[in-house]
Amino acid sequence: MTETTAPVLEARDARGVVTLTMNRPADFNSLSEDMLAALQAALDRVADDPDARAVVIAANGKAFCPGHNLKEMVARPELAYYQQLFQRCSRVMLAIQKLPVPVIARVHGIATAAGCQLVAQCDLAVAATEAKFAVSGVNYGLFCSTPSVPLLRNMLPKQAMEMLVTGEFITADQARERGLVNRVVPADRLDAEVESLVASILSKPRAALAMGKELFYRQRELGIEAAYQLASQTMAVNMMDGCAQEGFTAFTEKRKPRWA
Amino acid sequence: MTETTAPVLEARDARGVVTLTMNRPADFNSLSEDMLAALQAALDRVADDPDARAVVIAANGKAFCPGHNLKEMVARPELAYYQQLFQRCSRVMLAIQKLPVPVIARVHGIATAAGCQLVAQCDLAVAATEAKFAVSGVNYGLFCSTPSVPLLRNMLPKQAMEMLVTGEFITADQARERGLVNRVVPADRLDAEVESLVASILSKPRAALAMGKELFYRQRELGIEAAYQLASQTMAVNMMDGCAQEGFTAFTEKRKPRWA
Amino acid sequence: MTETTAPVLEARDARGVVTLTMNRPADFNSLSEDMLAALQAALDRVADDPDARAVVIAANGKAFCPGHNLKEMVARPELAYYQQLFQRCSRVMLAIQKLPVPVIARVHGIATAAGCQLVAQCDLAVAATEAKFAVSGVNYGLFCSTPSVPLLRNMLPKQAMEMLVTGEFITADQARERGLVNRVVPADRLDAEVESLVASILSKPRAALAMGKELFYRQRELGIEAAYQLASQTMAVNMMDGCAQEGFTAFTEKRKPRWA
Repeated sequence: MTETTAPVLEARDARGVVTLTMNRPADFNSLSEDMLAALQAALDRVADDPDARAVVIAANGKAFCPGHNLKEMVARPELAYYQQLFQRCSRVMLAIQKLPVPVIARVHGIATAAGCQLVAQCDLAVAATEAKFAVSGVNYGLFCSTPSVPLLRNMLPKQAMEMLVTGEFITADQARERGLVNRVVPADRLDAEVESLVASILSKPRAALAMGKELFYRQRELGIEAAYQLASQTMAVNMMDGCAQEGFTAFTEKRKPRWA
Repeated sequence: MTETTAPVLEARDARGVVTLTMNRPADFNSLSEDMLAALQAALDRVADDPDARAVVIAANGKAFCPGHNLKEMVARPELAYYQQLFQRCSRVMLAIQKLPVPVIARVHGIATAAGCQLVAQCDLAVAATEAKFAVSGVNYGLFCSTPSVPLLRNMLPKQAMEMLVTGEFITADQARERGLVNRVVPADRLDAEVESLVASILSKPRAALAMGKELFYRQRELGIEAAYQLASQTMAVNMMDGCAQEGFTAFTEKRKPRWA
Repeated sequence: MTETTAPVLEARDARGVVTLTMNRPADFNSLSEDMLAALQAALDRVADDPDARAVVIAANGKAFCPGHNLKEMVARPELAYYQQLFQRCSRVMLAIQKLPVPVIARVHGIATAAGCQLVAQCDLAVAATEAKFAVSGVNYGLFCSTPSVPLLRNMLPKQAMEMLVTGEFITADQARERGLVNRVVPADRLDAEVESLVASILSKPRAALAMGKELFYRQRELGIEAAYQLASQTMAVNMMDGCAQEGFTAFTEKRKPRWA
């Protein structure tokens, strides 16, 4: 498979920043079986790459991602097939959360259904002013149940419910106000804005971010006392790490930390 | 009981849209024992009505709902009575969540205490510009504990806590910004805005909305892995439904779905 | 220990309003071991004071609180020490939540790391326009894991994650929009705004607020059915309280409640 025909283009720069570009513009980058497999494989490679520092999920063409591939779904009207398909998609989503590095969605165009879910599932998201978001499966008779999982964990419930029930679009600015994306900029500043987040991430030690990201999602599912207990232990371990020791020493010596 | 003297007026149009209008304007539509019983009975009828498609909860007179009936409460200073009363009210609230069709609050005036809770508990809410919201029981020495249940599940905690502790009103626009209502319009456009949500709901298959609504509230109480598992299964079953098959086929054939 | 050299100044007015003022301006009021011990002791005293009605957490000097004392942490690079330190800090935070009276953060300046956590953990927060907020430990290689506990329980996740990963400041207005603080006013109106919340709290019966606050945080960790059950029971008990009986009677008699 050469780069130009792959469903997902992988670019990894010298800093360890992995950009995964969905590359089926003629198909608006639907989450076809090929696309899901390519995303899963790419995410698995990042998980195994001790020098990876951040992931950017982007897309080629006019749209970001319209969700599942409807033609493939129509062709296989079997319960077992659908079960497998949604489980496979959910595995990709959970892989994003489990990755030890931050994952940023770079949303330049329309993100609908599982495409909107992909944005919600990323740790951070930057959108172009033109981007629009919907969980529109219900327009075709399929309630966006799996997209509702990260949606409800990122937005207030009535706002999520309205999107799920009406299937209507919200603008990038509405997505930002409601917590679905972090930042909205004109299209020609999208890369610069993503890069500013990436640069901020790269200026921090990998280990601290990895421990923190894992703790963030684990403590969310705990009661507050158990959450504090786990967080206290995580921070103590983090403090013993050489990077934190150097960071704190640098602070007390009023100089910049010297991290490898 | 004729319609004009009933505490709750039920109107069901040919489309299956059930409008429940609280009808004790002289009493500001307090959630008296009669009102709670009438609401519960009406919701139970909707639950048993396979052709119901949406519920709108509205009110006659100046106010939407001021919460419980204080006179009735003062007359029965007994623990067992209060336990029964709040359980009965909670049962009404949970019935809204359990209903297989979306429930929209149409809030034209003041909604306080359990009246504000009623708005929070609905799946969606549209308010007139003049509507105001408070959980004001604390002003009379009764912290709005049951209202805090849907409030804390619809708003950010400090904003909910401020309302609960101060008992102060927020405006309709503040309620929208904070997630308590979806849309705010001038009073003369309130019905049109509710109707636009209703029309959107009616354009989707009932089964998809029913499966989706149930999943939405169930997955909220699960960890993310269990949530994805349940959502995947729900979506697979939803896809096997005739409406989704027709919807997806229509999409691939570039025509509108033909749903019964 | 005289008042002027204590790490925390305690002032308790005749109304039962306890103001705890962090008093290490030269150190920007870091949560040193002394400061944590003084806060814990002061909070414990409030917990044992049946006439305490509200707590305000404030600070002297330019900053509100920069989080932990980095010099102390650098001096003891031992896992057991860090475990103990973060547990001690978490105990202070949980003491705020467990207190039977509302706790208001009065934030006049910068609040970072565990200082930002302190704001998040309070029930309510009022900030001056100049105040700024960050969870900046990651800048020194230490992810703000314990601050993430109340942060994620007060803000939407992507907004919390952005702060945790970038370590960047947000303004007081952003903090208000995102739910981290309730109100933002010019510095010269900060005391008046805090006092308006305090006065509102004082106008309600202590018992109702105590029952309500405990219920608020307990029901948050329950499924909605269990939450309603606990809330119903809490409200029934609250209604049997003399203050609620007097409040409701006063309401039906169209007069002000006469509370002791």
